[in-house]
Amino acid sequence: MTAEILCVGTELLLGNTVNTNAAFLGRELAAMGIFTYNQSVVGDNAGRLKENLKLALSRSDIVIITGGLGPTYDDLTKETVAEHFGLKMEMHRASLERLQEFYKQFNREMTPNNKKQAMMPENSVVFKNNYGTAPGLAVVSDSKTVIMLPGPPREIEPMFREEVKPFLQKQSNIMLVSRTVHIIGMGESAVEHKLYDFMKNSLNPTIAPYAKEGEVELRVTASGKDEKECISLIEPAIKKIKDEIGEFIYGIDVKSLQNALVKKLSEKKLTIATAESCTGGLIGKRITEISGSSEVYLGGVVAYDNSIKMKLLGVKENTVEQFGAVSEQTALEMAEGAAKNLCADIGISTTGIAGPGGGTDEKPVGLVYVGIYCRSSGKGEITEIKKSVKFNFARGLYRDEREFIRYLASSNALNEVLKILDRF
Amino acid sequence: MTAEILCVGTELLLGNTVNTNAAFLGRELAAMGIFTYNQSVVGDNAGRLKENLKLALSRSDIVIITGGLGPTYDDLTKETVAEHFGLKMEMHRASLERLQEFYKQFNREMTPNNKKQAMMPENSVVFKNNYGTAPGLAVVSDSKTVIMLPGPPREIEPMFREEVKPFLQKQSNIMLVSRTVHIIGMGESAVEHKLYDFMKNSLNPTIAPYAKEGEVELRVTASGKDEKECISLIEPAIKKIKDEIGEFIYGIDVKSLQNALVKKLSEKKLTIATAESCTGGLIGKRITEISGSSEVYLGGVVAYDNSIKMKLLGVKENTVEQFGAVSEQTALEMAEGAAKNLCADIGISTTGIAGPGGGTDEKPVGLVYVGIYCRSSGKGEITEIKKSVKFNFARGLYRDEREFIRYLASSNALNEVLKILDRF
Repeated sequence: MTAEILCVGTELLLGNTVNTNAAFLGRELAAMGIFTYNQSVVGDNAGRLKENLKLALSRSDIVIITGGLGPTYDDLTKETVAEHFGLKMEMHRASLERLQEFYKQFNREMTPNNKKQAMMPENSVVFKNNYGTAPGLAVVSDSKTVIMLPGPPREIEPMFREEVKPFLQKQSNIMLVSRTVHIIGMGESAVEHKLYDFMKNSLNPTIAPYAKEGEVELRVTASGKDEKECISLIEPAIKKIKDEIGEFIYGIDVKSLQNALVKKLSEKKLTIATAESCTGGLIGKRITEISGSSEVYLGGVVAYDNSIKMKLLGVKENTVEQFGAVSEQTALEMAEGAAKNLCADIGISTTGIAGPGGGTDEKPVGLVYVGIYCRSSGKGEITEIKKSVKFNFARGLYRDEREFIRYLASSNALNEVLKILDRF
Repeated sequence: MTAEILCVGTELLLGNTVNTNAAFLGRELAAMGIFTYNQSVVGDNAGRLKENLKLALSRSDIVIITGGLGPTYDDLTKETVAEHFGLKMEMHRASLERLQEFYKQFNREMTPNNKKQAMMPENSVVFKNNYGTAPGLAVVSDSKTVIMLPGPPREIEPMFREEVKPFLQKQSNIMLVSRTVHIIGMGESAVEHKLYDFMKNSLNPTIAPYAKEGEVELRVTASGKDEKECISLIEPAIKKIKDEIGEFIYGIDVKSLQNALVKKLSEKKLTIATAESCTGGLIGKRITEISGSSEVYLGGVVAYDNSIKMKLLGVKENTVEQFGAVSEQTALEMAEGAAKNLCADIGISTTGIAGPGGGTDEKPVGLVYVGIYCRSSGKGEITEIKKSVKFNFARGLYRDEREFIRYLASSNALNEVLKILDRF
């Protein structure tokens, strides 16, 4: 079964919007074992949409169109598809009622052109939109399937996962289940190298790597007759991956480092505080992205200037003078200062050279120290852990290297805390 | 003149990479007055690339291909274009020398397949790559132009600006100059509404709005016989925009709020410190994105827990009890504490409810207070400024609302400082 993606929207042609929908759909379809060979983008223009739809249907079984489902005169996706297959447009009662309710709930007046969003080609399968006004839909005709989805990512992503995926699975009579293994500290090619034969030879489940900034995700996807069968296929594969590269895995299906960290701290009823130099607040920002992080994160100090490291974190003047602000010793004192001055169980610190200036032969751009300090009173006795880790994140020739170095410093700081937490 | 964009890369089909190149090129071409009606993506597959190239050339004057210029066997863009036009491939000496130098510089061995990157269709115009190994190129044949560019954004963006744009301008014999007006505190539709007739009627320069998260950019682009003529056309348009919506403009060609802020603080030799609650470190992170921010940014306190607001920022317990942590009074004391405890000229604070939980009727999700405290000794006398601003950034129905609220809180905090700085 092959699919292709056709995105409608002049804003995409003008580059005002980056086409994240195509990437999202490509990823979801690949995970379902559906191949895509083409993606196209056209503006809000009926003629060009019609041409592109015809071309897409001539080479693929499934065409997924995004955009052009809004209420205005230049939203023409449904009408163009109906015309292509010779279908009448009709009012979809349930969608109309949902729309009326939506406007009532927000005390907004429903204008006549909004009703257009509930008009559907006859015999459509309609997908509910829980995050916006335009429903999605599928038309099956001439052994081809055309799926139409709204443009905004916040609408399309949940709609695809909740409604379109089950619809496609039902069509293909296959159940698919995925698990994602989150890896840090090992590059994509190193992961591939280590697991090459296993990944290549594993057909069910399939194992696909995705490189993210400074991380790798392995998506393990099994197909079977029900969820139980899929999971029984996935489990041994995950065990095998853990056996091979377990020390680099920070979680399964955990979404992100900050998610995993907030969850684990909550479970263990521990609090954390940050002391950031080169990351400038990024670690705090990432932790507080997570709703509910206030249970475990007390706050932090952005100690960009050395005076702040001493004043608010108690770093000794002598330490900075003797070893420098970017040093193991300073990182450790920053972490300890954060834990003690903010009364947290754990303190985490970063100090490094993010560049582009400021590097020397001895301390080059990319050098980062992460410090951790913990005081735990587990098992009746007080344990003190002090740990520092040295990294070099420079990779040269990279225009956004400063942000890259800072991001990797924050990721690895979060990961170092996760690793320490296993001891509690 | 019409162009279309054809991106080559299986990673784009699989959704492993988001196609930011298409957006970048669309934006650049639109600014040059070159229309694009189609974008397509194909994998690393010679047959499908050939088909798509043929289709693209049948409907557009210029085809810009990205990707497939690497050294491996599945990088086939140049070969496919040469075959289409019946051109021979030949070694481009200057590119080969650059490649040899590149490998020498990094002490890396040049393998034979790397030479492939210096092979070009005969009579190509070659574009230097200052950020990677694959040069770009243009082939002009049968009154059509095919431009081939490398895939990585960090290579394509400077190559387009430095080499491709002048090439296209020379071809079309037109000089184009753009200025970007940065706007905050006014939505895209409000800007359009206010300037609608002016924008619609202004043909040279053209005025195009771009919505960014919480901001709007107006790109003013003039064409003329030289830079001087272009600028003389742009200036009155910018004056007119300033007359209409000047209070919402934070800069011209300043890249970002944090860039504008660091620059202005440097000029005025002032220092700043942050006190962040709901933004959790995001303001510090944004300021320290800017290389050289250490000249003006001393650091900050992420006061997520109320105890930290009191302990490190000197917020009075009574203030939090009486008015709440999310209040004008707390915001003001946080800002003052940041300036005084970190010995900075200016303190900036945020406190608010980022959601999704924690909102009440009185203090709903989206409510944010920004506080500013300055002590200036300008003109021989000490002036103290205390200011707080109340915002509500909620817009409902938005899955990533927490991040949206936090981002807008950080943007508006930066903007409030920029506004205060005009008084110094």
